[in-house]
Amino acid sequence: MDKIILLGHGSGGKMTSDLIDSVFVKYFNNDILKKKTDSAILHINSDELAFTTDSYVVDPVFFPGGNIGSLAISGTVNDLAVSGAIPLYLSAGFIIEEGFALDQLEEICISMRDEAKKAKVFIVTGDTKVVKRGQCDKIFINTSGIGVLDRKHLEISEGKNIRVGDKIIVSGYIGDHSIAVMGARENIQFENEILSDVAPLNGLIREVLNAENEIKFMRDLTRGGLATVLVEIVEDKNFGILIHEDTVPVRESVSGLCEIFGYDPLYMANEGKILFVVKNENAEDVVNTLRKNEYGKDVRIIGEITSENGGMAILRSVIGGNRIIDKLAGEQLPRIC
Amino acid sequence: MDKIILLGHGSGGKMTSDLIDSVFVKYFNNDILKKKTDSAILHINSDELAFTTDSYVVDPVFFPGGNIGSLAISGTVNDLAVSGAIPLYLSAGFIIEEGFALDQLEEICISMRDEAKKAKVFIVTGDTKVVKRGQCDKIFINTSGIGVLDRKHLEISEGKNIRVGDKIIVSGYIGDHSIAVMGARENIQFENEILSDVAPLNGLIREVLNAENEIKFMRDLTRGGLATVLVEIVEDKNFGILIHEDTVPVRESVSGLCEIFGYDPLYMANEGKILFVVKNENAEDVVNTLRKNEYGKDVRIIGEITSENGGMAILRSVIGGNRIIDKLAGEQLPRIC
Repeated sequence: MDKIILLGHGSGGKMTSDLIDSVFVKYFNNDILKKKTDSAILHINSDELAFTTDSYVVDPVFFPGGNIGSLAISGTVNDLAVSGAIPLYLSAGFIIEEGFALDQLEEICISMRDEAKKAKVFIVTGDTKVVKRGQCDKIFINTSGIGVLDRKHLEISEGKNIRVGDKIIVSGYIGDHSIAVMGARENIQFENEILSDVAPLNGLIREVLNAENEIKFMRDLTRGGLATVLVEIVEDKNFGILIHEDTVPVRESVSGLCEIFGYDPLYMANEGKILFVVKNENAEDVVNTLRKNEYGKDVRIIGEITSENGGMAILRSVIGGNRIIDKLAGEQLPRIC
Repeated sequence: MDKIILLGHGSGGKMTSDLIDSVFVKYFNNDILKKKTDSAILHINSDELAFTTDSYVVDPVFFPGGNIGSLAISGTVNDLAVSGAIPLYLSAGFIIEEGFALDQLEEICISMRDEAKKAKVFIVTGDTKVVKRGQCDKIFINTSGIGVLDRKHLEISEGKNIRVGDKIIVSGYIGDHSIAVMGARENIQFENEILSDVAPLNGLIREVLNAENEIKFMRDLTRGGLATVLVEIVEDKNFGILIHEDTVPVRESVSGLCEIFGYDPLYMANEGKILFVVKNENAEDVVNTLRKNEYGKDVRIIGEITSENGGMAILRSVIGGNRIIDKLAGEQLPRIC
């Protein structure tokens, strides 16, 4: 059978990273791309810039707490920010299905404007393509972004300074975005509405970086969720990660719905949550800094870098059992972002 | 009736520019975007950068002379180059339909690699989304690009130095790309195969800029074609343009097919052609420089900037009649790029 693209290739998990290695990195082969950081780090004249791209295909286009427009701004802003960059400029490329309502396009653009204002970035260039009915599903948006890096944060992007004893911090509840989108897609009525956590986190990240604590690594917990980021941190390393399940912040309503639908919150995409790896002595201080920010008020220390279990991320359950965390194998929820 | 998005909104013509003004520029409102240049011009620290984005939705994905991959590289490289920038880095965002053949994806990526090599640019960051069957048509690619500007070429992008007497130069035959794509889409058998002109033109542009001639303006003749660029040059200006129809390079086979299908070559998208506005005294020298390059060997001077007919582009036909050139009103050929 000829090999074809499957939904899992877009999951952000194992199949995505296999596709990246076997096709994109193989053919586009260059030193910058090979690093597979959230943003490419570019040296142009005397400046260090971060450059990133994301296409947004979320279904439905509007969901509790946001829409494809707010997602397209925050997602790309956050990719720049977790690289240690100050996001400055975004592009916006629209692919729109013939027949899409103009007032919905306006609503999306108003959200993009508002979100860009919150993030203090400018949308400076764009493109619009229209395809016939049935040739795309309503609207897809690509945003690419440029930010400037402080030289002192250059190493964060690759996580080269991670050491045994460092703490793992998550900036708040995980799973909200996925459940909000799934609920809207399947028209599920919740007792307490769950809102997407979509938010630009560059302000919060800047506060953490400015506080003179030693931040070893940051990443936003998007496609593939917390689990995928944990696996990527330890991959090919001689250290491991131990996560204490009872400290991972998941809302009761979210974990309840996950149980019903057979989803694992560890793999759910978030659009306003960050994982930090921080020097042990600085962990409490980072937590205090995060807690003061509206986007970090539910921050938790969830684990640490260990000398045991090199190359593996381990989840210690509430009752004491250990489970190896794997990358997402297939696809839990397509078109979540 | 509620207003909806129509195919014409993606034509690159009048409806596109109306949509840009009434929605995108209105809401994203900032000084850089408002200039509506091919690339945004950014001032970051001591550098001037060009930044641009384009989504490619061409149908069919493979056509004589190229495919969506070569198009996605050359199109964005050319947008940077006509701004006077040296293209350096590209992003690549893929939206792929479930079931798309992996070997076709590889073929596309190989073309992207080869085209990037020709253009001397690097694909440094990427993204992959997969949607279910029927939710997009095979594959869409967004590329965004970054280039560096020489300070002395900063003014070319806006065309502020255009004066009466300047010559209009086109780098070669127009219409080839549109006819090649349309032929592949409709499965038309040509006696002499017409190939798309897709090519990275940054090398050719650099030769022209290095030759110390006074280049007032450059633009690639993509969606909306030659006609749309001519109208944009004179819009709200007190000078006009006169084009001599018999000097506009159109292959006989292309004009023949245009006649049969009711298309106007002036409005056809090209992917390897540039219009230059050049100081009269330098025109012959620019033509000679272009003629030496494989992508400029069929260059022609097609007209001049006039003091009469301010704000209008006029086509003087072979038999002597004058016709006002308008922007493309609807859509001739959707999904041409």
